[in-house]
Amino acid sequence: MADQLSPDEKLNLITRNLQEVLGEEKVKQVLQERELKVYWGTATTGKPHVAYFVPMSKIADFLKAGCEVTILFADLHAYLDNMKAPWELLELRVKYYEQVIKAMLESIGVPLDKLKFVKGTDYQLSREYTLDVYRLSSMVTEHDAKKAGAEVVKQVEHPLLSGLLYPGLQALDEEYLKVDAQFGGVDQRKIFTLAEKYLPSLGYAKRAHLMNPMVPGLTGAKMSSSEEESKIDLLDTKEDVKKKLKKAFCEPGNIQNNGVLSFVKYVVFPLRGEFCVKRDPKWGGDKIYTDFEEVEKEFAEETIHPGDLKASVEVALNQLLEPIRKKFESPELRKLTNSAYPSASKTRGGAGGDNDELAPSRLDIRVGKIVSVEKHPDADSLYLEKIDMRGIESQAMLLCASIEGEPRRVEPLDPPEGSSPGEQVFVEGYENGKPDDKLNPKKKVWEKLQVDLKISDECVAQWKDNHLMTKLGQITCKTLKGGNIS
Amino acid sequence: MADQLSPDEKLNLITRNLQEVLGEEKVKQVLQERELKVYWGTATTGKPHVAYFVPMSKIADFLKAGCEVTILFADLHAYLDNMKAPWELLELRVKYYEQVIKAMLESIGVPLDKLKFVKGTDYQLSREYTLDVYRLSSMVTEHDAKKAGAEVVKQVEHPLLSGLLYPGLQALDEEYLKVDAQFGGVDQRKIFTLAEKYLPSLGYAKRAHLMNPMVPGLTGAKMSSSEEESKIDLLDTKEDVKKKLKKAFCEPGNIQNNGVLSFVKYVVFPLRGEFCVKRDPKWGGDKIYTDFEEVEKEFAEETIHPGDLKASVEVALNQLLEPIRKKFESPELRKLTNSAYPSASKTRGGAGGDNDELAPSRLDIRVGKIVSVEKHPDADSLYLEKIDMRGIESQAMLLCASIEGEPRRVEPLDPPEGSSPGEQVFVEGYENGKPDDKLNPKKKVWEKLQVDLKISDECVAQWKDNHLMTKLGQITCKTLKGGNIS
Repeated sequence: MADQLSPDEKLNLITRNLQEVLGEEKVKQVLQERELKVYWGTATTGKPHVAYFVPMSKIADFLKAGCEVTILFADLHAYLDNMKAPWELLELRVKYYEQVIKAMLESIGVPLDKLKFVKGTDYQLSREYTLDVYRLSSMVTEHDAKKAGAEVVKQVEHPLLSGLLYPGLQALDEEYLKVDAQFGGVDQRKIFTLAEKYLPSLGYAKRAHLMNPMVPGLTGAKMSSSEEESKIDLLDTKEDVKKKLKKAFCEPGNIQNNGVLSFVKYVVFPLRGEFCVKRDPKWGGDKIYTDFEEVEKEFAEETIHPGDLKASVEVALNQLLEPIRKKFESPELRKLTNSAYPSASKTRGGAGGDNDELAPSRLDIRVGKIVSVEKHPDADSLYLEKIDMRGIESQAMLLCASIEGEPRRVEPLDPPEGSSPGEQVFVEGYENGKPDDKLNPKKKVWEKLQVDLKISDECVAQWKDNHLMTKLGQITCKTLKGGNIS
Repeated sequence: MADQLSPDEKLNLITRNLQEVLGEEKVKQVLQERELKVYWGTATTGKPHVAYFVPMSKIADFLKAGCEVTILFADLHAYLDNMKAPWELLELRVKYYEQVIKAMLESIGVPLDKLKFVKGTDYQLSREYTLDVYRLSSMVTEHDAKKAGAEVVKQVEHPLLSGLLYPGLQALDEEYLKVDAQFGGVDQRKIFTLAEKYLPSLGYAKRAHLMNPMVPGLTGAKMSSSEEESKIDLLDTKEDVKKKLKKAFCEPGNIQNNGVLSFVKYVVFPLRGEFCVKRDPKWGGDKIYTDFEEVEKEFAEETIHPGDLKASVEVALNQLLEPIRKKFESPELRKLTNSAYPSASKTRGGAGGDNDELAPSRLDIRVGKIVSVEKHPDADSLYLEKIDMRGIESQAMLLCASIEGEPRRVEPLDPPEGSSPGEQVFVEGYENGKPDDKLNPKKKVWEKLQVDLKISDECVAQWKDNHLMTKLGQITCKTLKGGNIS
């Protein structure tokens, strides 16, 4: 299909609906000679939700225009975002992202032969790249780095050093992914201009930048990854979609900050070229629009009612989601989903932020090294252990496996090989909670949580069937299958 | 010798003359079990001068106390400090540092079998180290990083991002060099406390820190690497030493900020255990002191005169320098010195900072790619070239080699293989100058410099016998030996 397009037609497809293009001349020039190479990056953290259809619709445009598209999975960024999540989990999330993005693009119906997926850690820890990060840091001022990240890096009272590094990495990615242009939201603009300014100083070519407008989320005012509840997951059921859309902000006649209208503009029209508004015959019946401006105008005039708009978007959205749901019914993909996001279903119920909630992340469990063991002076069956946890000062308690009724069968738990004293132990699926500063003894947090700690039949320590882990792997014991932990 | 020392004696030797020790308990504990492992780092930039005897005297103490000492040559830092210097030159400087430091320690007379040299690039660009740099950056706030470097990183109006990274690297070095303690000046204190705070968060042990006081330079108020002229180089002749010492600030009776007295305290006494003040018999004749306090007291009372103090330090210093000078008379070490610091002798004469000075660094020479060549419309023997220099916008001029009187023998100069358009070309030994923003045509800078540009008999482009280079190597031409360049 792209073969039949002229360079001008390709350019139109590549730039339509964008808010801004930097370096359009360069893009034109490339299109005269060959297909354009574009990259889009995303950190593989939370589960992608329907807002991802906005960049995907644009990526569909690029693919239709014959572009070679690289999607960068920023797994290094994801790791740094939450260093408690082990690499195996991040690996699974990268796989999930790849599968779900492919499913979205298949659902949209674009050819995938010119689409490539790259992981950040494939090259971002290499010698050459690292040296370039340092070279760049020796040219960019603190001030420029800070300014570049201002709209993207979380603005907090005590900002972390890493926030100043990310813009430089994103600039270098353009060179290392060998692209002509980077695509992103217009919130990336300052990072893009930093890249344009500094890549030539490193002896690299200046790239073009394609910027999407900031589109309000379908079910809320912002597309951020918080407000987990309100977001429509790509695997949500039809019932969930209906329920969540019902709550979406969509005031009669108000076309500002209207996520439902935006979805029609940035997803439905680019993909389908038309939009059918379902309406009761008494209000004029169904009507097919071939032009977004008309939809917007009629909504402003209140000719289209919010309820009808939502119901119509629901139909369009379910058409997009249905093939994805289908694909993810396969046992492999169900397994992938559950292992990449194990807590998604488990914590949703109690995620009210209640501090009394009994999440195992409230415990501060660490790897310790047994320095010495002595018999207890007062009791034959008790031992005193000295434990080294490298600078972690607290009333240490040694976790052991034991079999009820067999007092002599006790084994200390084994951390993964290569663990260091002081390393954090967490329960799979509960990586994100913060341990209590001090366990309130009246609340009996430890006692209540301990009830669900046990050794699996594979000798792995578990809490309610979720593995106890460090970043290096599972906590195990030698022989006490089915034992308790205390 | 260290074998005969008790742990307490070792501790005394390790900590004597230090201003501060953090983690002394840990040091004591290690000394009960085994020898202490210490590291000291230095960036391999300028030529080490006599002020290096101050840390070396302390390193001599460590070696005498049986410590395993690692000296880190921070070549990555040196590279980032001046990215125009190519890696081959930095490699030579690392070799020079190693040779000269060994010569200093040999001159002092300590055993070197427990001394180890490591280069920063041996491990600082590795995957593991780099990941740790990012992990650390995700824990350290901008504010803490800035504070840590406040006394060490150059404080300028527009500070560079790299300045925020260095403290973290220095912390990680302790882990990667597998030491128990780091040694440095007390100006490093905030970096050391950052290391103590954050290494445990990464799961690494907290290290001890041994801090030398800030010692005024022998011939000036500061030990900084500027004021090149006034510093005594380790290879300076006896005449140079005398001349430079004459200029040293050493007011009668003033024991504050007196670099000459400090040298006696921190170098002569620790190394020799005594100090002989040469004096005319009419002033009481020579006197041997076995205790610095006495020297200081008598200087304060003006019993010791500045002239006599300087003359006596001159003798002591020459005793230390003589074996170094001797060692560096060998052809290999002379060659190493000249190639590691080619400009040292050449630029010294004209280093008056005069902007009219004819240094070749005033030219902004770049690698360009010839895009097209056309015959000149008006002249048969002239050609028009289109040159791509990647974002460098200026009136480009193509440098070619030619043989006088043979108009048809012209060759464009060849950059080293793998060069990119826009890369900086510099003259060996003149890496540090800044090109003029715009060459003033009235001053004929290019014309005057061009006179000394030529092709060597090895087909290498040169300015006054100094090679033209990029970071990748020499600029050459194919055949025109002895040709001109224009």
